[in-house]
Formats: sequence, C-alpha cells, structure tokens
Amino acid sequence: MHDCRHSPSMNADRDPEWARMAEKVRNWGRWGEDDQIGTLNHITPGAIRHAATLVRAGKIIPMGAPLNAHGPQGAHGLRRNPIHVMTVDGGDRQLEQLAKEWRGPTEQWVADLYEKAPGRFTDDYVIMPLQSCTQWDALSHFFYDDLLYNGFPASSVTSLGASRVAIDPIAERGHITGRGVLLDIARHRGVEHLAADEVVMPDELDAVAAAQGVEIRDGDIIVIRTGWYLDWLARRDEQSWAWQAPGISWRCAEWFHDRNTAAVAADNVGVEVMKSEIEGLWSPFHMLALRDMGMMLGEIWDLEAIGADCAADGRYEFLLSAPALNISGAVGAPLNPIALK
Amino acid sequence: MHDCRHSPSMNADRDPEWARMAEKVRNWGRWGEDDQIGTLNHITPGAIRHAATLVRAGKIIPMGAPLNAHGPQGAHGLRRNPIHVMTVDGGDRQLEQLAKEWRGPTEQWVADLYEKAPGRFTDDYVIMPLQSCTQWDALSHFFYDDLLYNGFPASSVTSLGASRVAIDPIAERGHITGRGVLLDIARHRGVEHLAADEVVMPDELDAVAAAQGVEIRDGDIIVIRTGWYLDWLARRDEQSWAWQAPGISWRCAEWFHDRNTAAVAADNVGVEVMKSEIEGLWSPFHMLALRDMGMMLGEIWDLEAIGADCAADGRYEFLLSAPALNISGAVGAPLNPIALK
Amino acid sequence: MHDCRHSPSMNADRDPEWARMAEKVRNWGRWGEDDQIGTLNHITPGAIRHAATLVRAGKIIPMGAPLNAHGPQGAHGLRRNPIHVMTVDGGDRQLEQLAKEWRGPTEQWVADLYEKAPGRFTDDYVIMPLQSCTQWDALSHFFYDDLLYNGFPASSVTSLGASRVAIDPIAERGHITGRGVLLDIARHRGVEHLAADEVVMPDELDAVAAAQGVEIRDGDIIVIRTGWYLDWLARRDEQSWAWQAPGISWRCAEWFHDRNTAAVAADNVGVEVMKSEIEGLWSPFHMLALRDMGMMLGEIWDLEAIGADCAADGRYEFLLSAPALNISGAVGAPLNPIALK
Amino acid sequence: MHDCRHSPSMNADRDPEWARMAEKVRNWGRWGEDDQIGTLNHITPGAIRHAATLVRAGKIIPMGAPLNAHGPQGAHGLRRNPIHVMTVDGGDRQLEQLAKEWRGPTEQWVADLYEKAPGRFTDDYVIMPLQSCTQWDALSHFFYDDLLYNGFPASSVTSLGASRVAIDPIAERGHITGRGVLLDIARHRGVEHLAADEVVMPDELDAVAAAQGVEIRDGDIIVIRTGWYLDWLARRDEQSWAWQAPGISWRCAEWFHDRNTAAVAADNVGVEVMKSEIEGLWSPFHMLALRDMGMMLGEIWDLEAIGADCAADGRYEFLLSAPALNISGAVGAPLNPIALK
Repeated sequence: MHDCRHSPSMNADRDPEWARMAEKVRNWGRWGEDDQIGTLNHITPGAIRHAATLVRAGKIIPMGAPLNAHGPQGAHGLRRNPIHVMTVDGGDRQLEQLAKEWRGPTEQWVADLYEKAPGRFTDDYVIMPLQSCTQWDALSHFFYDDLLYNGFPASSVTSLGASRVAIDPIAERGHITGRGVLLDIARHRGVEHLAADEVVMPDELDAVAAAQGVEIRDGDIIVIRTGWYLDWLARRDEQSWAWQAPGISWRCAEWFHDRNTAAVAADNVGVEVMKSEIEGLWSPFHMLALRDMGMMLGEIWDLEAIGADCAADGRYEFLLSAPALNISGAVGAPLNPIALK
Repeated sequence: MHDCRHSPSMNADRDPEWARMAEKVRNWGRWGEDDQIGTLNHITPGAIRHAATLVRAGKIIPMGAPLNAHGPQGAHGLRRNPIHVMTVDGGDRQLEQLAKEWRGPTEQWVADLYEKAPGRFTDDYVIMPLQSCTQWDALSHFFYDDLLYNGFPASSVTSLGASRVAIDPIAERGHITGRGVLLDIARHRGVEHLAADEVVMPDELDAVAAAQGVEIRDGDIIVIRTGWYLDWLARRDEQSWAWQAPGISWRCAEWFHDRNTAAVAADNVGVEVMKSEIEGLWSPFHMLALRDMGMMLGEIWDLEAIGADCAADGRYEFLLSAPALNISGAVGAPLNPIALK
Repeated sequence: MHDCRHSPSMNADRDPEWARMAEKVRNWGRWGEDDQIGTLNHITPGAIRHAATLVRAGKIIPMGAPLNAHGPQGAHGLRRNPIHVMTVDGGDRQLEQLAKEWRGPTEQWVADLYEKAPGRFTDDYVIMPLQSCTQWDALSHFFYDDLLYNGFPASSVTSLGASRVAIDPIAERGHITGRGVLLDIARHRGVEHLAADEVVMPDELDAVAAAQGVEIRDGDIIVIRTGWYLDWLARRDEQSWAWQAPGISWRCAEWFHDRNTAAVAADNVGVEVMKSEIEGLWSPFHMLALRDMGMMLGEIWDLEAIGADCAADGRYEFLLSAPALNISGAVGAPLNPIALK
Repeated sequence: MHDCRHSPSMNADRDPEWARMAEKVRNWGRWGEDDQIGTLNHITPGAIRHAATLVRAGKIIPMGAPLNAHGPQGAHGLRRNPIHVMTVDGGDRQLEQLAKEWRGPTEQWVADLYEKAPGRFTDDYVIMPLQSCTQWDALSHFFYDDLLYNGFPASSVTSLGASRVAIDPIAERGHITGRGVLLDIARHRGVEHLAADEVVMPDELDAVAAAQGVEIRDGDIIVIRTGWYLDWLARRDEQSWAWQAPGISWRCAEWFHDRNTAAVAADNVGVEVMKSEIEGLWSPFHMLALRDMGMMLGEIWDLEAIGADCAADGRYEFLLSAPALNISGAVGAPLNPIALK
C-alpha cells in the first residue's frame, strides 16, 4: 500500500548532508510494512529483564513536571498550560439543600446521596494540550513530504486523530519501558545549565558516557540532561523558555541509529537545539527521529532529581518506566516517568 | 492543628459495626500529623527491591483502558467520556497559504514555518474528568464529617483544587509503584465475570490467594479482578455499567489493614460493590479506605491481559508501576499502569 | 480565483430533480466573488427599520434553550452537552488561609486580595460543541464537491478554523438581525408536535402564512415551529431525539429562494426532516441552503413561548435579534435569540 | 429565609463614606424577596417600545470583541483566552476510507455517511472562561459579608454553579435589552483613550450627557467609552491591559441609583478604575453594583464602531440588544451585543 521507502525528498535539494543522513537512518520497512512502533522494537524481553536488575537501592525517582496553570506555555498559542477545574469540592457541603431546587438528574443524584448518607466526594477535570508539559511525542507528531514514519500518509491524521503511528499502539504495549541511561551534559560540562544557543554534538555524547562510566546498549532509552529546566524554574519566562533552548544536534541521529537506541528524552522543549542549524530546515532532528527513524522523543522532563541521584551514587543506568497515557488517536501524551534504581 | 483522630462520628449511630471498623482501621497520626500519603508508607525500599526481582520473563503488561469518546461515562453527569481534539492535523497542508490571511501570531508562526521549511507537525488536546477511565482516587476524593484523611479539613479542597492529600504528593514520589498481587476472583469462581450484585468477602480474598499460591506481604498493591470490565466490552451500556457492579465488601477494610496493604485496584468503577450494603451509608468502603485508612483506590483498570498471563504462568505477583499523572491539586488522576513480569 | 459557479456536480447524477434545484438556487457570485454572507444581503437598512416598527407591546421573548449538562447530545459522539464548571465559587471563603500555602501567582493573587479586602468573586468556564444547543450553522458548516458557498475551497476550513464563510463575518455585522416571521406548522395542523417522520412541503408554508395572515417579505428570517422541542422536554431521549425528527423538505429551498429569505430557523436539530428524502443524498436541504444558496440555518431554538405569544395576539411577525457569538473561525455559534414585539 | 437587608457590614468600619453609599443604594427587597434580576426591573414594556423608536437608519452596530486565542487574558491565571478547536474540518475528506478502520460508533457514523452520500460537514468546540472577553457579570459574580444581592447566601454558588442570581434568570427573560445610551468620555475629553489611572467621577457623566445632548431615562443601559480597548489593540499586552485600566469611580453608584439605571457596560475589563480608590476595599464599585444594587455590569465591549457612529450622527441613544448566552447556573456570560439605530 505504501511502498515509498525511497521517496524522493524535496529536502534533499536543501541540504545534501542532511538528506544523506535521512537516507541512512530511515527504518521504514525494517520491522514490516505495518509496523507502528519503530525503534521500540529494539526493546527485547532480555533488555527488560536486564533493566530490572538495575533496581538495587529500592528508590523511585519521578521525572514528571507538575501539570498546572503555571507551566511554560504562553497565553495565545496552540499550546496553553493545563487547566484544572473542580466539579465538586469540599466547600459544597450544603449541596443537599441547594441541589433539591436544581434542575437535572445529576444534581438530584448528588442531592439524594447527600441527604441520606454522610459520605461526600470531590471530583475534577483537566483540559490540556497533550504536549503542554512532560510528554512523549508520538511518531505521528511530525512529518515531511506528506509521509509519516514507515510511509503512512500524513492524511492518516485527521480531525478524529491519528489512525496510524499514534500514541495508542505504544500505550497498549505498556511503553516506553526499559533501561534508561542518563547522559548529564550540564554536569559533565560543570555548568548549571547549557546556554540557550549551545548544541550537543555526537562526540560529546560519547565523552559523557565514557566519563560517567556507563555503557550504551541496544534498546536503551537515552535521557539527556541540559539543565534547561532550571532556567524555567529560575525565570519562569514562558515568552522565551521554549523558543530559545539548548539541545542536541540533528547530527546525533546517526549516533542513536548506530546504537539501536529505543527512544530519547530531555529536559528541554524539543530535545534538539532550538537555534536553526540548517537554513531552510525547521526541526531537522524531529524530521529524522520521528519520521525517518521511528524513534519517539520525550520532552520537558524534570531531570533534576535523577541528575543529582546519579551523580551521588555514580550509577547512570536504571529501570525507566514511562508508559504513555492511553489516549486513542493522540499524537502525543502526558506521563509521569519514573526511574527505579 | 488538627488533633481530631478520635472525632465523634455521626456515622457511629447509623451502624455500630461499621463504626467500630472505622475506629480500628483509622491510621490518622500513624505516620505523623503532616502525612499525606497514608498506607503508601508501607512501600519500603526493600519492598521495591523485592518487587523488581519478580521481573523474570521481561514482559510488560499494560492495564490502562483506552481514553476516548467511547468509554463508560454517560451523556449528562458530572463525569463524561474524554474529548480528544486535534489542533493541527495532517489535512492542514495548505496552511501556508491560508494562514497568511489569518489573524494572529500563532497562525503567523505556523504559516512562516510552513513557508520556509518542509517540516510539518500535528498537535492535540484532551478534555477529561480525571476519573473518567483508568485512574487513582486521591485520598482527598472522599470524606465524611467534614474531615479528610489524617484530620485535614474538607475545606482544604476548594475550587482551586486540594491543598492536602491531593494527587501531587503521591505523583511527586513516583507512586504508586511496588509489588502487585492479582487476586483473580472471577477465574477462581470459574465465571467470566461476577454478577452485578455479587460481593467479595474477606475470606474469599484469603481463599483466592491460597488457591493461586501467592503470599500477601506488607506494602503490596492488591489488584482485584471481578471480570466486570468484560461486561463493559460486551454490552457497552453506560447507563448501567458503572451503577450496578460487583465488588468487594466494606468488611475487607480490616483485611487490608491487617496485611499492611499499600493500595487496592480493581476492574470495576469503585472497587467496592455498588449495591448498598448498609442502609444509610453510601460507599462505606470508600469512607474507610480513603478517609480513615489513607489507602488509595484504583478504578476501571483493564485486567484482562494480566489475568490471562497470571493464569498461564501461575505467577500472580509482579512489579507494578502505576505512577499517577502529576496534576497539581487533583483529587484523582488518570494513568496507564503496567505490570512487569 | 474561484470561478466555479457552474461546477459539474457528482450529485447531478444521483437525483436530476435535486440537481436542477441546486442549479436554480445557487447564489454564487450574486453579491460578488468575495461575498461571505450570502442571503443576509437581503436584509437592507429598510428591512431593519421596518422590523423595528413591529415592536408595539414592548415584550421580549427569548428563544435560547438552556446550555447545560442536560441537553439533547449523547454520551459518545462528536457533540456532547455543554460542560459548565466553576473556577471560584461561594464555598471558597477560606481561600485566604489556604492559598497562602499554595503554589502559583494566580492563587497568591487571590489570597492577597482576600486577605486585605472583603470583596469576593466567583468565576466559571464553559466547554461546549458550538452546535450542541440553540445555534446558527455558519455557511462553512456544510459542503459538497470540495466547495463551500461562493466557490471557496473546502480546504479553507483547517484545524485552525474556517478562513472563509465562518461565523465571524456574520457576527461582525451584528447578524442575524431583522424581521422574523413565525410559521407555526404544529399549531396550524392542530397537533402538539409533528410526528418524527413528517415532512413540511412548500405549499404548507404558503398555507400556514395565509392562515396566520402574515405576508412574507424580502429579507425575512423565517422561523419554523414543528413542536419537536416539546418531544425533547417530554421524553429527554438523547438517543433518538436528534436523529428522528420532523422538518421541512429540501423542496422548500426554492420557496425561500423565490422570496429572498435571509435565513431559516427551527425547533428541531437540523431544520430539515431527518428521514431520508432522496436515496444517496444525506441532508439535501443543508447542501442547498448552506452551500448553494448561502442561507444560514438556526437549530434547536425553543419556540414554545413565541408560538404561544403569536397565537395569543395573532401577530406572527417581530423584530428578531439573533446575533451570533463572535468566535473567530467558527463554523457554528451558540446564541440566545430574542423576538421583540 | 434571608431577612438580612440591613446586615451589619465588616466594611462599614473600613470606610464610612463607602458604607453609607452601600446603605443608600442597596435595593434588597425592593422588588420582592425572591427577586433575581435587580435593576433590570427598571426596564418596562414602555421603555422597550420607546427604545425601538430609536431605530431610524436601519443600522446594526455590533460591540462583541472577537473570541479567540489572541485576547487579553494571560498564560497562567484563572482566566485564559478562548480555545477554539475543530472536531471535523475541510481537510478530512478521506475520512470515509480512514474511519472504516476506526474504533467507535461516531466514527462509523461519519464513515457511513461519507461513503454513501456527497454531503460533508465541519464541526467545532469552544473552551472558554465565561468572562474572558465581551461579557455580562451576573449578580452572583461578586459578594461580600457572605451575602449575594437580595440577601441570598454566598453558599448558593457551589461547584454546580449559582442557584441564585445566576445568568439564567436574566437570559430566560431575553435580557439585557432596552434603550442604550453611550457616554463617550474619551471623545468628550478629546483624547484617544483615558490614561491607565484616570477615574471618571459622577459629574463628568452629567457633563458628557449634556454635551452629547442626550437625556438619561429610567431603565437605561449606560455604555461608557473610555477608549481603553484601543490600548489593547495597539499594545496587545495581556500582562498589563486588564490590571491597569481607567474607569469610573465607585462614587458613580449613587448617580446610577438616582437615575434608575438598568445596567452599565464599558470597554475596559471591570467598568471601574483598576487603581485602588479606597485602601482596603478591592473593587468597591463591583461590591455596590452587583451585590447591593443588583445592577449588572458589561465588560470588554468593543465600543469603537458605536463611538464613531454616534459622533457622526450626533445621536447617542439606540436600541441595545444584548441577551446573555443562556448558560444554566453561570456567574457570567459571553455575548455579542448590538446597537440598532
């Protein structure tokens, strides 16, 4: 149906080096033409068993930043901060009187319960862009040349959601769960956080891993700490934080590809550096990772606690349990990832 | 501030046996007067280390039911099914032309990106009651006599959310994660699912554990399978599914208390049976578990895969990773719990 | 840019009579190729002046059904009932104590205000499909053969909203306001309401107008009462109400066209009868009215009070003020229409 | 039940002059102890008949600012800008293929329709704080000393909404509709707009009315133009616009009371000046108007077109049709008010 593994790309003309990289790392068809999980195929039962052996201290270290009105999203854009509202709260104790005069079955139901019995409940809603805070990008979150990962057409993503490479095929496998490896770039450089324009190149990934004494294995979930989340906490400037951020170079795609990396997460808004690396190519690493490799990206993870813990015990590997919320057809999903050490 | 551990209860007059149970299982002050996590205190580093040793096959088994428009919530109540909407989809490829004529900075930003570079993204929102599907009840979800767990006042739950015993103190510890034990009541009874009015008594919990050959330990998260989720899948009747459901008796509270259980989850809407067990006491187990014991409840978990897997290998214990979404001030939270075996 | 006034239609082959009607009533280009308001062009300053002279008793008669959780939308569809939630309510009086310990600037702001001054406020949100209750369909709500009214491409309606023939060009003119004429079909037939399958043909519109003694004029907004809203109030069956409803025939399109009608509203969910009139053509009147004529449709209007009032005084004409909520890019809009008599 | 017309006020001690004003303008009980519409009682049938006679040119002048992502609300507060999202758009034309593989009844319904017939529809949602843009404050929006207008308890406003003095008793009367009078303060002062701290005193209201040659009558809806909306359009600074705004003094309460004014609207965020006029009393005019007088306030109205029109023809009076959206239990409501001249 979608035999387009070697689709001619309008991008090739723009930057030949990037185009050669795209060609090299493209995993389309590698796990079958119906594959919807991409590089998560690298996470084998053996990898999970091994990851569980890393739980030695019995510690849980969460990486989910709080979902509330005070996050890094702005006032006007497509993405806003989460809105949390109560539908019943603890100040509604006179509900039994009031609801009697009220108008509908729900309120009558509440009133009846409250009149005959002492139990009281509270309830709430959330309204949120799925990528407003700590999240996974689904493979369907990014595309070019009208094609998603594995050659699925971009038109698979309609107003009803994504019918291909959405969050649900991932969530229904309990992913992303496996061995996590932290590469603490900021600590390795000896800085609180990288500056807004700073880029991380592939050789620095090697250098950090070596300095930390951690081996990279097939099926790893690589977690990159730039320290940029501290900049959010310090300045809380939603007008600049997401748009001027340090991160990795698109040139790292090959590094992940060669090491059979399963996924990459970071403490900034887009894993990659926000500064344009190639004139005329916006988000070049997203294009390679999500669309060509089929490798999911985790964004806005709070890596302060895990960074401190790894530095303290010298162990930069852990069981990472980061299952996406199972939202049907979603192109991203919030989550609360945890490291078990 | 809240020295009300032995508060006189208006409920005592209603049912003396229930009141004695409440007195017995009440954990207020047990872990300090500021404690906000209740029986999760039973999950020690040792318990987590032990749970990790249960990961032997390298399998991940998810328990999160899909979050979409087709769930068990009704048309009119406080709780509705999740609403998932796209803010940018794959059919918006002509955006670069259209957005030029458009009115605001966001659209201009999209138009500019699309004009100069081939990358395309998609994005989405969710609008949902936090307890519309697979979820944890926070301790602040239920109370009586104006007091929450540990004696915190019910007025702590305002329109702004819960400032005490909310989801965030749990989520910020990466909980609930530990050893999970499945008690498969339906399979033990040899039925597809329990009937709507059937109740599970404490001695049946013992009998099932014994028959399954699983030992109950301190800090366990007990997962109860009634098979009722199959009734949802079979009939998809949102008018009755949640309101007529089998489940455990309030009398099980003591059983959990005696075994230092950390949390309880089930595949129905409220863990406990919906049929009234005590005239004049609505949700008697919720009152005991959430408010008196400080023990969180997991609801609407899809236990079909884990049930089949445990029956197949005879091992009813696993590492359960079920971290709540970190929504500040929430009284409940959606999640995608996973079992690692 | 869009010279497609005589576009060959895939529909012509399906039903030649319908296709001839479409050809006849199509107003594309009639008011210029950039026109976005269609038959509202029939509402002249003279028509408005005349409508104002109909205000003789000083009465206001509203036609907006209540927006709340108990409307006619179902549990699972694209359209649900409105969700109204409070963000601050009257039970939050202890907010000044609690918010001090809280986490963000908003809450601090509330706490500061509450601490220093006695004023208290309440606040709320609504979450709603724009067409969940009393509403106008924008011209961009319906199309066929990839073209909207006046030949604008259907791709004008992206995830960002409609950039052509949306609600805003209407709302920014204060429309729809003009002379309203009630045609009370149910009262004329002497029934409480039409039965679910009953259709209103053009000659009945003439008969009702004649019997009511009301003249139809250029630029009128014709309001059709079938009584079907009473069926909602009586049975409150969201599973059938919207899907089995009486209404007008697509053959009435010509009647409105010949009389220079500005807009049509009714007390059912789609103005036209829900029963299929032509095999293979779903919503044939919507196709003609919104897409070919450029004539907006009002739906789920509560016409009980206006029906009773017109019957009482024998005057079926009034100043109708029905301005759409000014939502940018919307393809429909809720409103509270009023008749002034 | 609520015989508290002369409630001792904790405010009296704070500012005796303000307290005397509150005592003077308090209308509790004036229209019966069950009255929920306050000063709208001043709008008589005669007043409406008279207002209709003001429609002489056949012009409609709307005053609803656009509801979209680009309004004056901020990124973090209780109030955000409206979120408009499409649930079906014009790029979803391949839905008939995709939806077949999809998962639920709604999608099947769309797919079936699309397969058998050429009609296509689009649909959308809005998510918005009810007071995020052009709006009416309900009387239940503000209170002090635990009492709402007419002595209703503040606890009438629960998480379920307001059961007293909400928007619905107003909307169900088709209000607010009557004679509108524009007092164009900015034009009278000869400035584009008042400066952020400037206050309008009662004598200036008299002076402007006199200069404009307009008589104030019982039941008028007074519309105050400060020009401040131009500051929004010019600077679009959501961080300051709403919080530093010119407006009327609380001392004007008496002026409105003496003239039997029905309601007051303005082009700023709160009608009254944002600068504190009385130490220790936040929003002193809101307290008087909404709670004591029972007089509703309209906010964030776009008065630029009506201002220009009145200046051009010298007529500052019109039929104002400003019916609130009929949201059950709401404490505010969006609308698109129109002037008919």
